[in-house]
Amino acid sequence: MTQASLPFERSEYDARLAATHAAMERAGVDLLIVSDPSNMAWLTGYDGWSFYVHQCVVLGLADEPVWYGRMQDANGARRTVYLREENILHYPDNYVQSRERHPMDLLSRIIEDRGKGGSSIGVEMDNYYFSAACFLSLQKYLPNAAFKDATSLVNWQRAVKSPQELEYMRRAARITEVTHQRVWEKVEPGLPKNQLVAEIYDAQIRGVDGYGGDYPAIVPLLPSGADASAPHLTWDDQPFREGEGTFFELSGCYRRYHCPLSRTIFLGKPPQKFLDTEAAILEGIAAALDAAKPGNCCEDVETAWRQAIARHGLEKESRCGYPIGLSYPPDWGERTMSLRPGDRSELRPGMCFHLIPAIWQDDWGLEITESFTVTERGAETFCNYPRKLLIKD
Amino acid sequence: MTQASLPFERSEYDARLAATHAAMERAGVDLLIVSDPSNMAWLTGYDGWSFYVHQCVVLGLADEPVWYGRMQDANGARRTVYLREENILHYPDNYVQSRERHPMDLLSRIIEDRGKGGSSIGVEMDNYYFSAACFLSLQKYLPNAAFKDATSLVNWQRAVKSPQELEYMRRAARITEVTHQRVWEKVEPGLPKNQLVAEIYDAQIRGVDGYGGDYPAIVPLLPSGADASAPHLTWDDQPFREGEGTFFELSGCYRRYHCPLSRTIFLGKPPQKFLDTEAAILEGIAAALDAAKPGNCCEDVETAWRQAIARHGLEKESRCGYPIGLSYPPDWGERTMSLRPGDRSELRPGMCFHLIPAIWQDDWGLEITESFTVTERGAETFCNYPRKLLIKD
Repeated sequence: MTQASLPFERSEYDARLAATHAAMERAGVDLLIVSDPSNMAWLTGYDGWSFYVHQCVVLGLADEPVWYGRMQDANGARRTVYLREENILHYPDNYVQSRERHPMDLLSRIIEDRGKGGSSIGVEMDNYYFSAACFLSLQKYLPNAAFKDATSLVNWQRAVKSPQELEYMRRAARITEVTHQRVWEKVEPGLPKNQLVAEIYDAQIRGVDGYGGDYPAIVPLLPSGADASAPHLTWDDQPFREGEGTFFELSGCYRRYHCPLSRTIFLGKPPQKFLDTEAAILEGIAAALDAAKPGNCCEDVETAWRQAIARHGLEKESRCGYPIGLSYPPDWGERTMSLRPGDRSELRPGMCFHLIPAIWQDDWGLEITESFTVTERGAETFCNYPRKLLIKD
Repeated sequence: MTQASLPFERSEYDARLAATHAAMERAGVDLLIVSDPSNMAWLTGYDGWSFYVHQCVVLGLADEPVWYGRMQDANGARRTVYLREENILHYPDNYVQSRERHPMDLLSRIIEDRGKGGSSIGVEMDNYYFSAACFLSLQKYLPNAAFKDATSLVNWQRAVKSPQELEYMRRAARITEVTHQRVWEKVEPGLPKNQLVAEIYDAQIRGVDGYGGDYPAIVPLLPSGADASAPHLTWDDQPFREGEGTFFELSGCYRRYHCPLSRTIFLGKPPQKFLDTEAAILEGIAAALDAAKPGNCCEDVETAWRQAIARHGLEKESRCGYPIGLSYPPDWGERTMSLRPGDRSELRPGMCFHLIPAIWQDDWGLEITESFTVTERGAETFCNYPRKLLIKD
């Protein structure tokens, strides 16, 4: 079986593994079970929509990572990872969604058989794809193991992007731009919302400059009017209406890398509150980007934003940003840092964030956001798209 | 705040709640914490892409379900559920992706404060959205509770569809048909794969007959050639090639209801092995559908399929089908029954399945599938689309 092309050089994977093994050692973890599909892909190249069944990558079991998943997905692993055949392990199909057998039962046996049953085992306790049942199975069948919470251990290694990763993010940003451009061209009163979403997907997936688009980890979010008070509503087939604002939070995706951007479009003449809030948000964004430089920390960015909008009489309870990069559904965030009070994580060159200083009020909302990377010279935004409330009158 | 239209009558939600409360009683569960977004939607109407943070619906805490989620998503709940304001509860934003505070810590306090801390509490132990950390938090902060595994307790109540649900599935099926039609019209050697995926999304989301498409819970799967040996690879921007088979596994989605269907298209003249396998699969599908009648059970359908393809010298290790309906990513299956040996679940009218008798060989694959509902008269397929290996020469 021939192999599809890996998105990165082998040397880059080697560096990722070295960093992760060092982090494991610092955490006192001998064996690491990685259930997060983004982490699995980052470590091994594995890419497939198979995370709806249990699967993982295990570090510390062999001289390279071990992929473990459903038998029928082992072929997908063979097509996408750099691992040797003996390190692609699988469980039979009658372990799938069974109440009698759990895939982790069998993984425990493999770990035990290799003499690793007494290890200090790191698991991603608070990950979508590591259920409570996974943990109970491991505890039951590896009674001599000491389990440690390794949630986000690998995610943290992903925080600083390599030049190749930044290149992929820039390609994603080009896709984000053409997608927003398409929205601007097509949106109008009377157009059913799903028809515009079809255009959005078309732009996202066609890509740009010969770079095809991958599926974003979050679907387009585009609530209008009172729905825009809620950040995560999707769409229906009702028409856009004159006199309403809609925010469009969406991202291009290139080889699983994301650059989300949100813009609000008002159809018709916006009320003064939109214009006032726009002014506050723009000032807040400028202040936040200014603070997003090496040596500062996450909360400094939030403080700059908060102080700027406070001058406009506004406040926002939720965090104003999170790290981005490689991701699989249901989230395009990296789930390590947050731009919020109390987060003292230091900003370093190569880190990437989605700055989302959105204002959601009781019956309307306004989002203007930027994705940026930290450089030695400060924040550099990924997208080149008019940063303002867009008015189509 | 006005409310968006619920997809079902209140009486239908009442019936769902009654069935679920009866199942809780049979299972000895006083309080049920429902983390599966499909179950949350089915019980309350909640609809939003917010399952990347912790949220749940709790039954047994008030006289109607209680929605619990992130503060900023409470507005989304107000827009989509039928619950009274006092039953929409939320946690502050500094609980999001925090290593110090877990949203389940706070839920425990709410449960304790309402005098329910000593309950028998059902949790969905093996669900994507109920992490090991969720369970540990509940155990820690509700030391007097008795926890029971209620994985798929609600899913089972969803197995038999109502007339309105069947109507939504039929609309999804119409979308599935036009999407496959679009694939057939557009696919050709030289076309970059992502360009065809853009067409697929366009067809899926535009919908048909005035019914707009929702996002399917699984992205289009369309591996070609040797990649088709692996069922869950997605796409890249490489061109389709003459002399290769590609299967297209995709679904229309209407108000979160799915009707998946897969067809294989061969560009050029297919080798004899494709034609032989096609004949076996078609015979197997006919036999399986014939066996899918009330009174028979899941394994009878698989037996019929297996015996039919055995006459062609073929065998398949994996299950040949699973129940479908309402769903959110990452899976459009219901995760209760499986069409496989040992599953003695009885087929009842109104149950719906995706029959996926796919054959994945070492370096190629062939998928021809059907979604069907069980009726008093036997299986009734949802889609009307040529059931054969499609050859574009």
